[in-house]
Amino acid sequence: MYLARIIGTVVATQKDASLKGVKLMVIQPIDSNGQDAGQPVVAADTIGAGYGEIVFCAKSKEGAMPLRDPNAPVDAGIIGIVDSIYNKA
Amino acid sequence: MYLARIIGTVVATQKDASLKGVKLMVIQPIDSNGQDAGQPVVAADTIGAGYGEIVFCAKSKEGAMPLRDPNAPVDAGIIGIVDSIYNKA
Amino acid sequence: MYLARIIGTVVATQKDASLKGVKLMVIQPIDSNGQDAGQPVVAADTIGAGYGEIVFCAKSKEGAMPLRDPNAPVDAGIIGIVDSIYNKA
Amino acid sequence: MYLARIIGTVVATQKDASLKGVKLMVIQPIDSNGQDAGQPVVAADTIGAGYGEIVFCAKSKEGAMPLRDPNAPVDAGIIGIVDSIYNKA
Amino acid sequence: MYLARIIGTVVATQKDASLKGVKLMVIQPIDSNGQDAGQPVVAADTIGAGYGEIVFCAKSKEGAMPLRDPNAPVDAGIIGIVDSIYNKA
Repeated sequence: MYLARIIGTVVATQKDASLKGVKLMVIQPIDSNGQDAGQPVVAADTIGAGYGEIVFCAKSKEGAMPLRDPNAPVDAGIIGIVDSIYNKA
Repeated sequence: MYLARIIGTVVATQKDASLKGVKLMVIQPIDSNGQDAGQPVVAADTIGAGYGEIVFCAKSKEGAMPLRDPNAPVDAGIIGIVDSIYNKA
Repeated sequence: MYLARIIGTVVATQKDASLKGVKLMVIQPIDSNGQDAGQPVVAADTIGAGYGEIVFCAKSKEGAMPLRDPNAPVDAGIIGIVDSIYNKA
Repeated sequence: MYLARIIGTVVATQKDASLKGVKLMVIQPIDSNGQDAGQPVVAADTIGAGYGEIVFCAKSKEGAMPLRDPNAPVDAGIIGIVDSIYNKA
Repeated sequence: MYLARIIGTVVATQKDASLKGVKLMVIQPIDSNGQDAGQPVVAADTIGAGYGEIVFCAKSKEGAMPLRDPNAPVDAGIIGIVDSIYNKA
């Protein structure tokens, strides 16, 4: 899984039927120091994450597993909200 | 899923039989500000997206799920057309 | 799927049994303007693509689907030969 | 699989139910000389790896296989602890 | 699949039970001219490849297919040894 910060929301009227009612967020992957790392991703959210929160996300089929329809064509999902990270380095 | 802009169409006579009748688009992945990000991708389209539109796409097996034959050897699919993105950042 | 140009052929006597008789090509991924993009890949070919042709390829399990044994340990497959690409950009 | 060094721990109260009791570590992928390579990853640990240890990890669905619930939405897992690497180069 | 050169061996006492007896090699991905390309990878070997040999490897679940336990949490496997590559370019 990778760490990311919630930076936006996607509105899409015309989409695959299985995505009806699925909340889609724009997330910015970050490193363990909170710096941006790579391109933003559109991820499904079933956890109820809000703007600015740090989350961890699963890729590909694993990202769709928490959805009501786990066979939805979703390849990125928000899996948990990070309370804290202990970096001993 | 990732954001992309439709930039072209692929014509291929000789192809895997399961791809007969599947519309194939060349899409340019973009970041949440609309800037190009990485290499163009060939994606299947079942949504009816048109040239220049901003879409979001699923990778790997998830990309083939909306096809009539979900076992077609397709690894990228256009899943929805973006109406708007709210970036609070 | 991604665009690529056929640049070579792999000869391998000692290999997984399921790959017997599978034609293996070295392909160079390209962007939609025909420029090289990233590292060459070894891909299975069931379409009959020849040296120098532009093809589109599927990744991971999708790449093995056109093979006689779809459970062969193949993660890249040539899926179609490109006749032309219309880039309106 | 890839090599990585354990650099931290993730604490997350709000997460997918299948992740209850799963130990989540922040790992830094490294090359075979121990140099950092790419972005840190959040990985599930069932091996009992500790801070600073060198481990090897599996990606995507393979990463979740050692979990009690192999269908948990996990895409990276610590699979083994490295005793030593012989580099003849 | 990608081309790689065998550069080392991994010794790991503490690992997932399904990996008992599986030979783990450190491989350096290369391009079709034999130049290093990207980071080394830990791959399972069932072919009997030796130090310095050029091999081709499969990623993710495809990499585990040749193993006795194809459900082992392995995401990279050596699939064949390269005798020669014909690059016409």
